[in-house]
Amino acid sequence: MQSYYIRYKCAIFAEKFFQKNYSLINLVLGSARFTKEMQKKLVHAMSLLAVGTVAFDDIETPFGHAEMVVGGAATYITLAASYFAEDLKIVSVIGDDFPQEELEHLKSRNIDLEGLQIKKGEKSFFWAGRYHDNLNERDTLDTQLNVLADFDPILPASYQNTEYLMLGNLTPAIQQKVIERLDTRPKFVALDTMNFWMDTAMESLLEVIGKIDCLIINDEEARQLSGEHSLVKAAATIHKMGPRYLVIKKGEHGALLFEGGKIFFAPALPLAEVFDPTGAGDTFAGGFMGYIANTGDLSFDNMKRAVIYGSAMASFCVEKFSIERLKNLSNKEIKERVAQFVELVNFDAQL
Amino acid sequence: MQSYYIRYKCAIFAEKFFQKNYSLINLVLGSARFTKEMQKKLVHAMSLLAVGTVAFDDIETPFGHAEMVVGGAATYITLAASYFAEDLKIVSVIGDDFPQEELEHLKSRNIDLEGLQIKKGEKSFFWAGRYHDNLNERDTLDTQLNVLADFDPILPASYQNTEYLMLGNLTPAIQQKVIERLDTRPKFVALDTMNFWMDTAMESLLEVIGKIDCLIINDEEARQLSGEHSLVKAAATIHKMGPRYLVIKKGEHGALLFEGGKIFFAPALPLAEVFDPTGAGDTFAGGFMGYIANTGDLSFDNMKRAVIYGSAMASFCVEKFSIERLKNLSNKEIKERVAQFVELVNFDAQL
Repeated sequence: MQSYYIRYKCAIFAEKFFQKNYSLINLVLGSARFTKEMQKKLVHAMSLLAVGTVAFDDIETPFGHAEMVVGGAATYITLAASYFAEDLKIVSVIGDDFPQEELEHLKSRNIDLEGLQIKKGEKSFFWAGRYHDNLNERDTLDTQLNVLADFDPILPASYQNTEYLMLGNLTPAIQQKVIERLDTRPKFVALDTMNFWMDTAMESLLEVIGKIDCLIINDEEARQLSGEHSLVKAAATIHKMGPRYLVIKKGEHGALLFEGGKIFFAPALPLAEVFDPTGAGDTFAGGFMGYIANTGDLSFDNMKRAVIYGSAMASFCVEKFSIERLKNLSNKEIKERVAQFVELVNFDAQL
Repeated sequence: MQSYYIRYKCAIFAEKFFQKNYSLINLVLGSARFTKEMQKKLVHAMSLLAVGTVAFDDIETPFGHAEMVVGGAATYITLAASYFAEDLKIVSVIGDDFPQEELEHLKSRNIDLEGLQIKKGEKSFFWAGRYHDNLNERDTLDTQLNVLADFDPILPASYQNTEYLMLGNLTPAIQQKVIERLDTRPKFVALDTMNFWMDTAMESLLEVIGKIDCLIINDEEARQLSGEHSLVKAAATIHKMGPRYLVIKKGEHGALLFEGGKIFFAPALPLAEVFDPTGAGDTFAGGFMGYIANTGDLSFDNMKRAVIYGSAMASFCVEKFSIERLKNLSNKEIKERVAQFVELVNFDAQL
């Protein structure tokens, strides 16, 4: 894989060169289109709809305490995806306690909030948690459903053309409603869920899982859902439930992608500092779906790249509290981070 | 990395072709040497000395119970290494209760037992353990030091030319003695240890760690030894203790190789069935050291390959009880297993 790294170095250099010599190049090559392509970099226009919470978090880690900071699955998913896809939409609900400037920031990232309901006089969903020293475990200190208690996902007419759908972790019944309310089925539907729904709503969860293309869950959830300890066996069982693709997130141990008999493993980047893991899973899903929406390619080879881009975005997310690190990343930072993943697993087998 | 897979396919084909057409090729190419090279395949003569237990295990897993089966670090290390290195030596001690046919089998794998002391009327080291259903945790049910209680590692004169030394998990003082008793320091010294020695003999452990080239431990041991939770920080701390190379084993989550600022990650092969994890760590170390002894190349790139070969050997080890799976592997099986590792992490970043 050395070659990809070199290819990447060349790409970076070429990009810098073209940016610096834009007019000169136009003069020389007489081709604005080519250089415009270079300028466009990663982002590409494909519609991606994210359904999930937009919320407040109160987070305690060994490194500090962040009170009433912006969180929520749909927030992390769309912010991460905004580095790859231009036409982003949110279906969610908040109270009138949500800061306007945070909404403006989401809009500034090309995220359409027409489907974000704002309930007058009500409060946004709130979660408070404390992470253990190892940052792998956390205790939920408080959960206030507030506006989420009677959330009915209403889809604006402009959302009907959605090509890619990411159903963030929510009541399976709500995830199901969104699929039903789209006149034409999206090209690709992914779903995230959690053990809580397996304990309390397995039947409706299995029903919606039967309608999706890709399930994104962690290793313990995969074991609970399938009843198999071996993740290879768990994947085979889950494929039978419907999803053609399965992503099993293993936190600091990386992620596995399954399709039929094929398996791909993406490591997590070994980091010196993990500051706040909150939203890492949703950020992974956002990067993963954003990359797929950007490329429109559902081949296993492209899914592998999507997993790597998702992992790269998640590795940024944990570097700061809340959504801070996802607010203004550069394409250069993202490409360099992906190159680190290439380096991390790169070896010449010399078979 | 596609290319390596193709290269591997070509290698397999070429090998088969040369084997089938041995005499024809000699006739055509008039070169026996070339085809002999092909026949030699993996194994290469470099002296590797393994110090560690040769013992009996009593193993209970969810899949069955194996009583008084052959185990011990030195056994697994040398058996795994025997697929890569020809000149293998053991320094260890057993009682006269050890089955002769098992010793003959080790000899048949080119393992020199001159340094294996046999104590008349005494019993070999014995360990009994029961694995939990997840196979990641185990309880030690019984440990009988027996001959190991007063083990003095005596090195035959013929062992003095050892180029590669693998110090299996033992009392740090014994590991230290072996280094001191070698007139010329080996080209490369690796050491395995465990939390027990960190709790009971940290001072002498740190002394011997200061004399080695490569430390091979698991993630929890790395955290305990360094006092750092982040494995990246742990690695930096452990490098300061002496070892230029550090391998952190994460069981089913793979292994990390550190040298200075460089990091390489090797996944564990996702297996449908893990039958018995006993000896997997020692088998990894044997494959790792065997590959290094085979190639004589201490570059980071070659160390990466050694980690992959070690992981491949470990993936065989867990498929059966005791040393069964390591008794008669073919080079073809090993190469195919390594090719699976290539496939598992292979992606085209398209940066």
